[in-house]
Amino acid sequence: MRRPPSPPAGSMLYHAGMSAVPIVSPVSDSLPIAYSAVLRAAERIAPHAHRTPVLRSRGLDALSGATLSFKCENLQRAGAFKFRGACNAVWSLSETVAVRGVVTHSSGNHGAALALAAATRGIPAHIVVPEDAVASKVAAIRAYGASVHFCEPTLAARDLEAARVSAETGATMVHPFTNFDVIAGQGTAAKELLEEVGALDALMVPVGGGGLVGGTAIAARAMAPNLPLYAAEPEGAADALESVQRGERVTDIVPKTICDGLRAGIGDINFALIRHYGVTVLPVSDAEVIAAMRLIWERLKIVVESSSATVLAAVLRHRTHFAGQRVGLVLTGGNVDLERLPWLPARA
Amino acid sequence: MRRPPSPPAGSMLYHAGMSAVPIVSPVSDSLPIAYSAVLRAAERIAPHAHRTPVLRSRGLDALSGATLSFKCENLQRAGAFKFRGACNAVWSLSETVAVRGVVTHSSGNHGAALALAAATRGIPAHIVVPEDAVASKVAAIRAYGASVHFCEPTLAARDLEAARVSAETGATMVHPFTNFDVIAGQGTAAKELLEEVGALDALMVPVGGGGLVGGTAIAARAMAPNLPLYAAEPEGAADALESVQRGERVTDIVPKTICDGLRAGIGDINFALIRHYGVTVLPVSDAEVIAAMRLIWERLKIVVESSSATVLAAVLRHRTHFAGQRVGLVLTGGNVDLERLPWLPARA
Repeated sequence: MRRPPSPPAGSMLYHAGMSAVPIVSPVSDSLPIAYSAVLRAAERIAPHAHRTPVLRSRGLDALSGATLSFKCENLQRAGAFKFRGACNAVWSLSETVAVRGVVTHSSGNHGAALALAAATRGIPAHIVVPEDAVASKVAAIRAYGASVHFCEPTLAARDLEAARVSAETGATMVHPFTNFDVIAGQGTAAKELLEEVGALDALMVPVGGGGLVGGTAIAARAMAPNLPLYAAEPEGAADALESVQRGERVTDIVPKTICDGLRAGIGDINFALIRHYGVTVLPVSDAEVIAAMRLIWERLKIVVESSSATVLAAVLRHRTHFAGQRVGLVLTGGNVDLERLPWLPARA
Repeated sequence: MRRPPSPPAGSMLYHAGMSAVPIVSPVSDSLPIAYSAVLRAAERIAPHAHRTPVLRSRGLDALSGATLSFKCENLQRAGAFKFRGACNAVWSLSETVAVRGVVTHSSGNHGAALALAAATRGIPAHIVVPEDAVASKVAAIRAYGASVHFCEPTLAARDLEAARVSAETGATMVHPFTNFDVIAGQGTAAKELLEEVGALDALMVPVGGGGLVGGTAIAARAMAPNLPLYAAEPEGAADALESVQRGERVTDIVPKTICDGLRAGIGDINFALIRHYGVTVLPVSDAEVIAAMRLIWERLKIVVESSSATVLAAVLRHRTHFAGQRVGLVLTGGNVDLERLPWLPARA
C-alpha cells in the first residue's frame, strides 16, 4: 500500500480540508460507449432488475449540511448494483453465443450477479473463485445455479482458469468492469436516480475497478451535462486518484482497506472514462468509512456494505465543499457478514 | 409470563403446525373509529410522514412458499410507524389546545414519534420516561426538542407523572395506543400497502398495545372486506392471544420477550377492535423472531428491530397455511442498538 500523495494547491475545488484532484480535461472526444448503450441497457434489464428506491434522511442532511439523495442499490437483486451490468451483458449476447454460457472471475458481488443474470436467461454460468473465498459467498453463487471453479488466489491463476473454462465450454467472458456492456448496465443506476430526483449539484459513486463510475459518467453527462461527478475511493486502494494525478494508469498499488468491493485496480477503459468525463476522485480513510457505514445503518435503517459508505464518508470529509448542495449518492451494495460488523470488537 | 394455552382443535384455520385462534364474531356493529378517520389521518400526515416503500424478496418468497410484500415502516420518520399516529394526533388538535403542547409516557418509539410530531407543528412535547430508560433513546427524544420527565419504572408512577405534567402545563395526553387519533393514524400504513400492492390473501402486523392492529383492521376491512387479518405476538407477551381465546381482556401477564416494542398489554379499545374485525393472533417464540430478524437484514438488506420480525416469523411458522398466498406484512420499526444484535454472542 502507498499513501496517496497530497493534493496540489490552488484548484478551485480546494476548500477547507478538501483533498481532491482538479477536474481534468477530456482525453478524447469519442469514447466507444455512448449514452444510447445505457438506454438500451435500461430496456434490456427492466424485466429482471429492481428499480431501487431513493432514500432521504433529514438527520443526515443536518449532519452534512447538504441535501442527500441515496440510490439504494443494496436493495438491488443479489444485493448490489453489479446485477445491472451482469444482466445487460447476459441479455446482450446472441442466442447462439448465449447458450454456451458465461464465465467470470470474482469472489464477490459480480460473481453472484452474473450467476443470477445467467439464471434469468436460463444459460450456464461459470464463476472462478479463489480457494480462500468466503464460504457464504461461494454458497450464494451456487444457490443461483452457477458452476464454481476454484483457483489459486493470484491474479494470474484467476485469469488462466477463466480462460481455460471459456476455451473448454465456449462460455463468454464477462469481465467485472472492463466489459462495455457491464459498464453501460451500471450506468442505469445513475439514470434512474437523475430521473427520480431531478436537478442535482453533485453526483458521487464509489470507485474500485471503475465499472460503476464509467457508466455513471456516461449517463450523467448525457442527462445533466454540467453536473460535477465524484468518485469516492479508499485511501488504502487509491490507484484511481493516483492515476488521475499522474495522468497515467497506476497498476502497482497493493490494496489495503476494509472496503472489499473496492480493492480491484482501476481498469484501462474505466480510467479513460474517468479522465474523459472529468470525474473528481475523493479519498476516504477506513475509519471514515466505518463511521459513515454506521450512520447509514442507524439513520437510513438499511444494511450497506463498507464500500457503499465511502460516498457518505467523502461528503462528510468535504462538508464545506458540499454544504448547501443537492448531492446524489449511489449506495452500491448490502452484502455483509452480520456477525462481523466493523464497529464491533473483534472476536477471538 | 404465562405459557399461551394450546389452540382449540377443529377450526378451518388449523393446518399442520398451526396454532391460531379461530376467527371470532364481531362484538359490535358500530365502533367509534370509522374508515373516514383513517382517510382524514392520511391527509393530515401527508405533508410530514414518508410514504414508505414496499419491498419484495424472491429469496424470502422461496423460503416461505408465499408471495410476501413488506411495508417498510422502519424507513418512516423517527424510525417507526408510530410517527403516523403521533402526527395525526398532534395535527388533530385545535390551535388553542395545540399551543399548550402534548404529553405521553414512553421509553420507546412512541416517545420519539410524538416529540418529532410536536416539532412539525412547533408545539411543546413532554415525554415521561422511566429512570432506567436507555440513554440513546432519551437522547433521541431530546434531539427532537422535547422535554424529558423521569419517573420511577412502574406503570403507576408513569401514569401519575404524565397526569401531573398535563395538569401543570395544559398539555394534551396522547396515549401510545388507546387514543383514537393514534389508532386512525396507524391505519394509514395498511392503506398505503393495499393501494400499492393491490389484492392480497392475508395481511399481518405485530401486536403489542394494539394501536397498529386496530388501525390496520379499520383500513383493511374498508378496502378489502374479505381479507383475512393476522397479528403476530411474542409468546412471552401473549395477552392479546389469551384475551381473544378467553373472550375478555387479560391484564395480568408479565411480559418476557426480546421484542421490546411489544411488551405493552393490549388496550381496551384495541382488544375490542381485534374482536370486532376478527383478527387472528399468531404467537411466535423469541428464537423464531431472532431468526426472522436476521433473514430480513440479510435478504431485504434493511435494519429492522425485533418486533418487526414477528410477522415473518409467524409466516414461516405457519408455512403450510400461508403457502401460495399473497401476504402483506408491516415491518414496524428499525430502532436497534447496533452493538447488541441478538444473534451476536453476549458481551461481558
